[in-house]
Amino acid sequence: MPPKTFEKRVERLRELANEQGIDGFFATSESNMRYFTGFSALAIERLAAIVIPVNAMEPMLIVPKLEEEKAMKLSFFKDIRSYTDAEDPAKLVDKIIKELNLTKGTLGVESFLPFKFYKMLNEASLSLEVREASEVFQKLRRVKSTDEIDLMKEAARIVIKGIKDGIETIKAGTSELSVAFEIERKIKESGGESVPFCMVLSGENSALPHGSTSNREIKKGDAVVMDIGATYKGYYSDVTRTVFVGDADQKQRNVYDIVLRAQESTVKFVKPQVKACEVDETARKIIDKAGYGEFFTHRTGHGLGLEVHEEPYISQTNETKLEPGMTFTVEPGIYLTDKFGVRIEDNVAVTEEGRNVLTKLSKDLLIVQ
Amino acid sequence: MPPKTFEKRVERLRELANEQGIDGFFATSESNMRYFTGFSALAIERLAAIVIPVNAMEPMLIVPKLEEEKAMKLSFFKDIRSYTDAEDPAKLVDKIIKELNLTKGTLGVESFLPFKFYKMLNEASLSLEVREASEVFQKLRRVKSTDEIDLMKEAARIVIKGIKDGIETIKAGTSELSVAFEIERKIKESGGESVPFCMVLSGENSALPHGSTSNREIKKGDAVVMDIGATYKGYYSDVTRTVFVGDADQKQRNVYDIVLRAQESTVKFVKPQVKACEVDETARKIIDKAGYGEFFTHRTGHGLGLEVHEEPYISQTNETKLEPGMTFTVEPGIYLTDKFGVRIEDNVAVTEEGRNVLTKLSKDLLIVQ
Repeated sequence: MPPKTFEKRVERLRELANEQGIDGFFATSESNMRYFTGFSALAIERLAAIVIPVNAMEPMLIVPKLEEEKAMKLSFFKDIRSYTDAEDPAKLVDKIIKELNLTKGTLGVESFLPFKFYKMLNEASLSLEVREASEVFQKLRRVKSTDEIDLMKEAARIVIKGIKDGIETIKAGTSELSVAFEIERKIKESGGESVPFCMVLSGENSALPHGSTSNREIKKGDAVVMDIGATYKGYYSDVTRTVFVGDADQKQRNVYDIVLRAQESTVKFVKPQVKACEVDETARKIIDKAGYGEFFTHRTGHGLGLEVHEEPYISQTNETKLEPGMTFTVEPGIYLTDKFGVRIEDNVAVTEEGRNVLTKLSKDLLIVQ
Repeated sequence: MPPKTFEKRVERLRELANEQGIDGFFATSESNMRYFTGFSALAIERLAAIVIPVNAMEPMLIVPKLEEEKAMKLSFFKDIRSYTDAEDPAKLVDKIIKELNLTKGTLGVESFLPFKFYKMLNEASLSLEVREASEVFQKLRRVKSTDEIDLMKEAARIVIKGIKDGIETIKAGTSELSVAFEIERKIKESGGESVPFCMVLSGENSALPHGSTSNREIKKGDAVVMDIGATYKGYYSDVTRTVFVGDADQKQRNVYDIVLRAQESTVKFVKPQVKACEVDETARKIIDKAGYGEFFTHRTGHGLGLEVHEEPYISQTNETKLEPGMTFTVEPGIYLTDKFGVRIEDNVAVTEEGRNVLTKLSKDLLIVQ
């Protein structure tokens, strides 16, 4: 992304902050760091943060010493402050809060700010109000630019390559793990940056919405749910397909058909101005009506971008109205404990006219063998 | 692990809590959840937590509805409370805090407790004191049982298989990514559960302690640093080796020799009663004396177990005295910007007599081709 893109993002954040009475931001997540600076630190338990004052002062990047070199190469923020393992980052935070005149202001932080970093801010100034402001970041990030959607399309293309390859290896006798491995290999060979999850669940395991890929041998008659997430230049794609091995019985076909109808109707329902909860309701109604409501145990989808779960959440309670540029998953499912599960998931981007499906992969019932 | 193991862990936590005046614990990390219950949730932005009252009341597990089934199968804690996506977990937290008579007590939390969960506790009861108590968990977890060390040995064995395989594929013309891919494949095929990082850095990239594996083509004369972390049944191994391609020049040999001397001397220095900072100092002195002190930009190591970074940190400031059962990395390095870097990392467990190296892999200078 060109420097101009980053400049605009900071500018827009400042506008939103002014509306909310926020004087500055302190963020430690990789996603926000990447969004505002182009750099993200592998800081793990060390402090790495961006500090963005709302006044005209220059934003800063705080990194552990061993990230400094990489930060200098990649970060759009040029005021980089580092500390060694022998130094206490709390002192650096204290200094910066004073330097940026934030001691009496309101500082916006992320909902996932670790307690120990919150305490550093609190100790830097007791008169500093620390306020959860994830929604400000989300408001900015949930509407993607064309550049961002292009990266998500590329991520989707890569994940689909992986799933296609994985499907080809499914047969009775293969393990879930070996299918997952094929998918991951293909994704990495195709330019996928990371594969944070690569879930292949078969038979009774497919009834666990968040099960773990295991050495279980895939059997004839199994449903196989593949739920794969990978990034390209930081941006996620998250796709699920369910296939059957050798044959699908009447119940499996019926459940698949219900999930598919729910998923397709929901995708078609997506357009500007409808509420996220109405999108959720579309899927839920169809599954309820078919008598499987209690077996659809999760929300219909989640926003997708630099994070795998972000705004807008497609849940029963989210009143957010969709806008062009919003991107999220549509992934209803039915889970029959100890029997099987079916989930179908696409990624969509809201457009002026409706929606664009980013994940171009068939959803017809597929029996592999 | 048998139920007895989990019972003892809770019992020991309660003893430590009593010493510190803590009335209960609220923890959301996967590692603590796994340590106390045998189950860990893939909760991402949803709340999943263990709540352990210090009085005789039964500990609880809070999970999102879609994790409930897995939790019932795997968790040692049998009092499992779940909430759906349509319900507010803050209400459940509020109810539980009251049920466990914690409204006026001191609740120990992890240093990484997300701000939004901290706020739920704060809102449940303003007279509840929320105290950072990671050190209590760490005190318990930093001394491993024989069972745990056996799992770490197995993790080490698996990572070493991967590195050996990776080394065999290194030659001029191969990309960093394809070497990393071989390593990851071998680890997964060998029973590795997850490979959270698999860093292969060559040439000038090897001078970045936390660089990113790229499509860079490995060249003759390159140093190649491989830093690999994988888990087996939740437990980590984290191993680094540096090899040279085709040839190593005098400077490379010299730097390798210094790092190797520092690493081996430090490993030999490990024994009960010495302080973590003295272990760090051992490596630092050797590298300083050789004139490369400023190029050793990080601490000498970190504790290892259910987390890749945990207590005891082998840093200049950690006064913790080593005890039998503590496990950590010893990984000095020298990084010459735009030229090359060398790091050598083993995992050690402190024993009654000294230390046991868990990572049995040659450290002799290796020129591949």
